[in-house]
Amino acid sequence: MSADQRFTQVAEQLGYCFDGEIKIGGNYVPLLRHDDEVYISGQIPRVGDTVVVTGRVGEDVDLARAQLAAKIGAMRALALLQRSLGSLDQVRRILRISVYVHCSADFTQHSEVADGASEVLYQVLGELGAHTRTSVGAYQLPKNASVELDLVAAVNPQV
Amino acid sequence: MSADQRFTQVAEQLGYCFDGEIKIGGNYVPLLRHDDEVYISGQIPRVGDTVVVTGRVGEDVDLARAQLAAKIGAMRALALLQRSLGSLDQVRRILRISVYVHCSADFTQHSEVADGASEVLYQVLGELGAHTRTSVGAYQLPKNASVELDLVAAVNPQV
Amino acid sequence: MSADQRFTQVAEQLGYCFDGEIKIGGNYVPLLRHDDEVYISGQIPRVGDTVVVTGRVGEDVDLARAQLAAKIGAMRALALLQRSLGSLDQVRRILRISVYVHCSADFTQHSEVADGASEVLYQVLGELGAHTRTSVGAYQLPKNASVELDLVAAVNPQV
Repeated sequence: MSADQRFTQVAEQLGYCFDGEIKIGGNYVPLLRHDDEVYISGQIPRVGDTVVVTGRVGEDVDLARAQLAAKIGAMRALALLQRSLGSLDQVRRILRISVYVHCSADFTQHSEVADGASEVLYQVLGELGAHTRTSVGAYQLPKNASVELDLVAAVNPQV
Repeated sequence: MSADQRFTQVAEQLGYCFDGEIKIGGNYVPLLRHDDEVYISGQIPRVGDTVVVTGRVGEDVDLARAQLAAKIGAMRALALLQRSLGSLDQVRRILRISVYVHCSADFTQHSEVADGASEVLYQVLGELGAHTRTSVGAYQLPKNASVELDLVAAVNPQV
Repeated sequence: MSADQRFTQVAEQLGYCFDGEIKIGGNYVPLLRHDDEVYISGQIPRVGDTVVVTGRVGEDVDLARAQLAAKIGAMRALALLQRSLGSLDQVRRILRISVYVHCSADFTQHSEVADGASEVLYQVLGELGAHTRTSVGAYQLPKNASVELDLVAAVNPQV
């Protein structure tokens, strides 16, 4: 099965569609390629027009919902890579993800939240999805999102 | 108009001078070049010896002041690039900015704050200033600054 | 004295051993090499099974303890580099560290905390350890750690 087929499979499992336009405002871009590296802007768990998981993890949002938020963020990043590269089979490696968890004062399971994102990357990309990771607790996030993540990937050289 | 002339123009519009020494302590550097990438250390809205915008955004500081803080941080980053490269026309692309907003518990306009930085980068560098971006809410920042940002840029090869 | 000897010396000064296995869960890796860059996952001040410095800096933890936490994080990152490269003499440059300080609402000495990490990098790597740096205040961190840091390094090409 190709990485693109696995992407579609994970999207179906989550029950969300990632085909829509990635909304973006301001003078920045959702994705940028420099040589064989691709940078992805911070992704919140938005599907279409709706931020699906909002609120403070450990207070308004439990671990399972927070992991879902991380999964959606990772899927959005993959959707951007797919659209830009033509196929996720062009991804050579996910180099780094940073996962920001909008959490309560005593919530300490940031790594477990980030596991949601790491799981999706592994499901879709296999060994190539294994990445370095930093997960921290943020005081707030854009649009009251529960989780935000950004990503750097290495991709195949352009022919 | 060159990028350097636009930089001077934006500095005049903001009413600040970015010629002074960039203060730095500790065993680290404000800017570092590796091949054709330049990394810039986290910049707070300092002008000369003064941190111009301090306090919690959404509580002590309104959106417009926070955007000013982001603009100053972006100008400081550009000033460092200019000094290091000789001219901002050597910048090929801004690859990534991370914008940390020292905010109140319910402030959710981090992207709008970051727009201040993105606007400055676009004003000075045009299309080459379009970048990927992550904006998050920090609980505090160095010296009680309202905004901090760091940056990675791609630059022309050294001759 | 080689960088590896200086690493051992700093470990002895701190009174900790960094030989043990780096514990990691989930589908991610502690370290990843892409061409001549090495990315290191977020490091908390863990030694063996114990997170040595936990709690909120400025409330439960004073500046000196927080600096110790930053030093341990930096030593863990160096231990990972040493194990992966065979020797710390293969490090060409530390490009970037991001230092997250789990702090109180009015703690503003994040840079001073990060100085602990910068000092260790300089002690072990000398001039090659001078890096760009971003330090921010996090609301919480994994396992209630007081400090977390991640790192990108440039290393010698593989023969």
